[in-house]
Parts: sequence; C-alpha cells; structure tokens
Amino acid sequence: MENKAKALVVLSGGLDSVTALHWAKKNYDEVRAIYFAYGSKHSSREYDCAMWQCDQLNVPLTRIELPLDKYFKSSLLQGQEEIPEGRYDEENMKSTVVPFRNGIMLAIAGGYAESIEFDCVVLGNHAGDHTIYPDCRQSFIDAFSQALKEGTWKSVKLVSPFCNIRKEDIVKVGTELGVDYNYTYSCYKGHHKHCGVCGTCTERKEAFQLAKVADPTEYEK
Amino acid sequence: MENKAKALVVLSGGLDSVTALHWAKKNYDEVRAIYFAYGSKHSSREYDCAMWQCDQLNVPLTRIELPLDKYFKSSLLQGQEEIPEGRYDEENMKSTVVPFRNGIMLAIAGGYAESIEFDCVVLGNHAGDHTIYPDCRQSFIDAFSQALKEGTWKSVKLVSPFCNIRKEDIVKVGTELGVDYNYTYSCYKGHHKHCGVCGTCTERKEAFQLAKVADPTEYEK
Repeated sequence: MENKAKALVVLSGGLDSVTALHWAKKNYDEVRAIYFAYGSKHSSREYDCAMWQCDQLNVPLTRIELPLDKYFKSSLLQGQEEIPEGRYDEENMKSTVVPFRNGIMLAIAGGYAESIEFDCVVLGNHAGDHTIYPDCRQSFIDAFSQALKEGTWKSVKLVSPFCNIRKEDIVKVGTELGVDYNYTYSCYKGHHKHCGVCGTCTERKEAFQLAKVADPTEYEK
Repeated sequence: MENKAKALVVLSGGLDSVTALHWAKKNYDEVRAIYFAYGSKHSSREYDCAMWQCDQLNVPLTRIELPLDKYFKSSLLQGQEEIPEGRYDEENMKSTVVPFRNGIMLAIAGGYAESIEFDCVVLGNHAGDHTIYPDCRQSFIDAFSQALKEGTWKSVKLVSPFCNIRKEDIVKVGTELGVDYNYTYSCYKGHHKHCGVCGTCTERKEAFQLAKVADPTEYEK
C-alpha cells in the first residue's frame, strides 16, 4: 500500500474485526482501535478478546459506552428475546439484527477519527454478512463513505478490506498475518465457550473448514 | 403533504429543531423526538426546552446518553476550551464543531426509527450552518440519505425541510406554526440566560431581526 497513514479500526473482538486490526497494523503507520459497548449479550467476552489483541499489537483501544439495549429491539441485545440457532443466512437470524449498527459505529468512529486527526476508519464487514445485514453491503459502504467524506473537514475515509471476500478468506488472510484466533470471540450467546450452534458459531466453524485451517475454538456443542 | 407517515425528529431544544418538531407535527400522522445528551456545555438548558416543547405537542421524547465529551475535542463540550465569541460563520467558530455530530445523531436516530418502525428521521439543519459545519450541507444530507436507505431493511428516509433556507426563514415558518420561541435555547455557553455574544446567539438575534419577528429571548448582553 503506497499511502501509509493513520487508521482507526472498529474492533468487536470477533474473528473479522481482529483480522482487520492485524491487516491495518501491517498496512498503516499508526493504528488505533475503537470498541463499542452497545449492550450485546456477548459484550464481556468480546471485549476481553479485543483488549488481548490490542495488547499484543501495542494498539491503543478506546471503549465507547452506548447502551443501545435500552432503546433498540434485537435478540442480540441484553434482556431481549432468545438468540436463534441455525445458519447465519436464514430468515430467523433477522432477529439478531441491531438496526443500522454499522452506520452507528462508523459515524462515531468517523467523528472520533476526525477528532484525533486520523485518516481513515477500517471496518471488517464481509460478503457473508450481506444476506441479513443491509449495513454490511457494498452499496451501504459506498454511500457511507460518501457521507463521511462530505461530513468531515478532512474527508475521513472508510476502508472495508474484506467487503467482497468471504469469512473463510478472512481466516486465510489472518492466518498469514499470524492472528491467534483463540483470542477472538464470535458467539452471540456470550457464554464462556462458544455455543457452537448459533448463526455466528456455525459460520465460524465452516470458515475454518473451508479455509483448511485448524479451528482452535472450543465449542459447547 | 400526501404521504402521511411516522416521523422521528432529532431534537436539541434549539430554535431550528423545535421548529422542525412543530413542522413534523403538522405534516405527519405520528411524531416522536430523540434527544442526544452528548456532553455539550448547554445540554441541561437545551433539554428543558426539548421537554417543554414535547409536552406541549404531546410528543414522546427519548433521551440518548452519549458522552462524546470524554472522547472528542470541541469547545462545545464540557471541560474543554472556551466558547469563542463572534459571528457564526467566522473561522474561530470552527472550535465549536463536534466532528460528524449530525452523522452520529442521524445514525442512531436512523437505527432507532427502524427499531420502532418509523418511516423517517427529520433534521432541522439549515443553510446558515453550511459554512463551518460540513455535516449540515446538502451534499452530506444526500449521501447520508443514501446510506440510511441502503443500510436499513425498511429504507428509513432522511427529511431535511430547512436544508436550503436560512434561520430567519425558519423563524417565519415557526411563527406561522405558533412556536413559542421563549422555550428554545440556542446559546453555546449554557448559562441560564442566552449570553448574546457567542456565534449562535448572534445568529439567533439576527434571525428574529431579519424575519421581522419580535425576539422573546432575554440576553445577558
């Protein structure tokens, strides 16, 4: 990458965003990460992983408190309906959508990037997210990029390195970058171990299989 | 307006957004308002006005806690540098910019609108904001509208009724709608009375003068 610059990574502590963090660390001169405590059931486990990865890479991590569970309806949020089991791209997974979550995280990250004079925001969304999460698609990324460019003085950029590859490709990228996937957490249920049966666990298992990379994850089932 | 629908108004308690609230109440079947406690110096006075106006119109008001003062740099925020005095469109007013503030409020409002099954988000930005606030311009509004459309299941709309009129025109619109401007608060300093000399106070005074409407505001100076 020719244009070395300062990148702020939206980090959840999941497989995708952790890989994006390592990818950014390789491709930018300076990297910071931003974590959103938005009231998800799996927040605590995720945050542990986000901190561990940032410690490893010597990346400063900012935690933003945004209790969306008080206002928004989603099975992903604390105190709300049960997380469905099954495949990630099935209709019943729609209950896990937190409306416009990426828009919200990107907006705050974009403002924060402008505030600390960083050039871009990196998001680890990928092609497998497109079916049920409209704010993961290329058309959303393009429109939001434009909004961020127009709405900031220094035209903060939005970088989405995995937008058109699948989770198994992310595993391959991360394995080359030396990511320790033991310290990533994907499960929506938020138990200590990954449940193994929710949409993200199913997707995670398959990604390692398809990538032909040993899966270090301990699953309940 | 033919398409009567449900509108969520981003309400600060200032002159512009209060007028937008009354405008929405006239033009939509169902109206709610959303207020952001983002750590501004004038938050408490603003919120009182937001509540008063919602009570008058029987509009439910949701308050979102988002302490941006902990993370962002802006003279508008608590504990940070002094609010400059002078005209709203001068270079020194730039310190009052909260980076991408409208992007952030619109993203959360957009997600909340989708969550409560509302059709659109109404923002009271206007032409006088364009000089120093990039996230008030038409180009930003257009790009964000597209992002919101692409990033939500029900294509939440962004409505910006005052984007290309000036503050004095908003005063005229509001006066016709019967808005009591005594219960709006604009001053960035957050004292009990409007200071009369900060950028927004200067702009507020001029707006009433240009609109040829009696200004009910008590100013310190």
